[in-house]
Amino acid sequence: MKKSLGPKTIIYPTPAIIVGSYDKGGKPNGMTVAWAGICCSSPPCIAVSLRNATYTYGNIVERRAFTVNIPSEKYVKEVDYFGMVSGKNADKFSATGLTPVKSDLVDAPYIHEFPFILECRLLKTVEIGLHIQFIGEIMDIKADPSVLSGDGFLDIEKVRPILYAPEDGFYFGVGKKLGKAFSLGKDLK
Amino acid sequence: MKKSLGPKTIIYPTPAIIVGSYDKGGKPNGMTVAWAGICCSSPPCIAVSLRNATYTYGNIVERRAFTVNIPSEKYVKEVDYFGMVSGKNADKFSATGLTPVKSDLVDAPYIHEFPFILECRLLKTVEIGLHIQFIGEIMDIKADPSVLSGDGFLDIEKVRPILYAPEDGFYFGVGKKLGKAFSLGKDLK
Repeated sequence: MKKSLGPKTIIYPTPAIIVGSYDKGGKPNGMTVAWAGICCSSPPCIAVSLRNATYTYGNIVERRAFTVNIPSEKYVKEVDYFGMVSGKNADKFSATGLTPVKSDLVDAPYIHEFPFILECRLLKTVEIGLHIQFIGEIMDIKADPSVLSGDGFLDIEKVRPILYAPEDGFYFGVGKKLGKAFSLGKDLK
Repeated sequence: MKKSLGPKTIIYPTPAIIVGSYDKGGKPNGMTVAWAGICCSSPPCIAVSLRNATYTYGNIVERRAFTVNIPSEKYVKEVDYFGMVSGKNADKFSATGLTPVKSDLVDAPYIHEFPFILECRLLKTVEIGLHIQFIGEIMDIKADPSVLSGDGFLDIEKVRPILYAPEDGFYFGVGKKLGKAFSLGKDLK
């Protein structure tokens, strides 16, 4: 018999990613986000949800662009910091030593040190409630060659991304490989 | 120097969850989805994206409700199967032996064997492209007492959810705990 926990915002896993943007004056900012996910294959799109009180919200409305930066677990401290402090009051790049790089495709900065990043142009804005969802069309993914497999794919075991457990409030790494998709299930067909 | 991979739909991690729904005739169906994520804290909402060719798409349009079922890694084979086969042609519950339970809150079935589930009513439908995004208000979370921590929280290390690595096409488990959110980053403030 399952126990009711009430209406809460929990799925496992959620990502821990940093959304990059420029403010009006051109100052780069980053904000850690867990309410995010791929939302369309064609055009390739990602959805990120933000409160309109955040500095990044105003930046994306203004610039109509953002980046999504996928960290390695060695940057977990920086990821946490980017979620604790507002860009209104701090230059998070200076504080952490991470390097903002101007995208050549969209009007937003990405994080040089992170293993791969998505460059997005704002496609759609969806009002939901406390959070507003920005749907960004993914114009390109750029990756460090060191996290690619021999066949040029992004290797999750080299990327070593961070996942976030809502409510529990802990970050976790990626564990063991469980098997191949569109293959394991054949046994049941 | 980062290498351009082109516009692709990759973030790490993405979830591997099963969306539960009833068809017109009341047959329960489930479909594995990775294009999903929490999208609002208040009201608590989750977004799941589906192609309109799927059986589940029609079910949700008709019933205006769905569940989100978070698997344990021991069900990875079933999760893969639920993503390979259409409910048009198969009764996936019979094929796998998993048990659909009628939600008492929304017009959709959840999976008895999975450690926790979200019951959602359709709040908004967002046309994007190949995928349509359903935004569901989370009316309740129901969990097996065995996956709760002593203080009643959902313990990710007991749930043992599955994450999916797009492109690479492998499922992974959850790895080691990296640290506490809103705490690790204090060192940088």
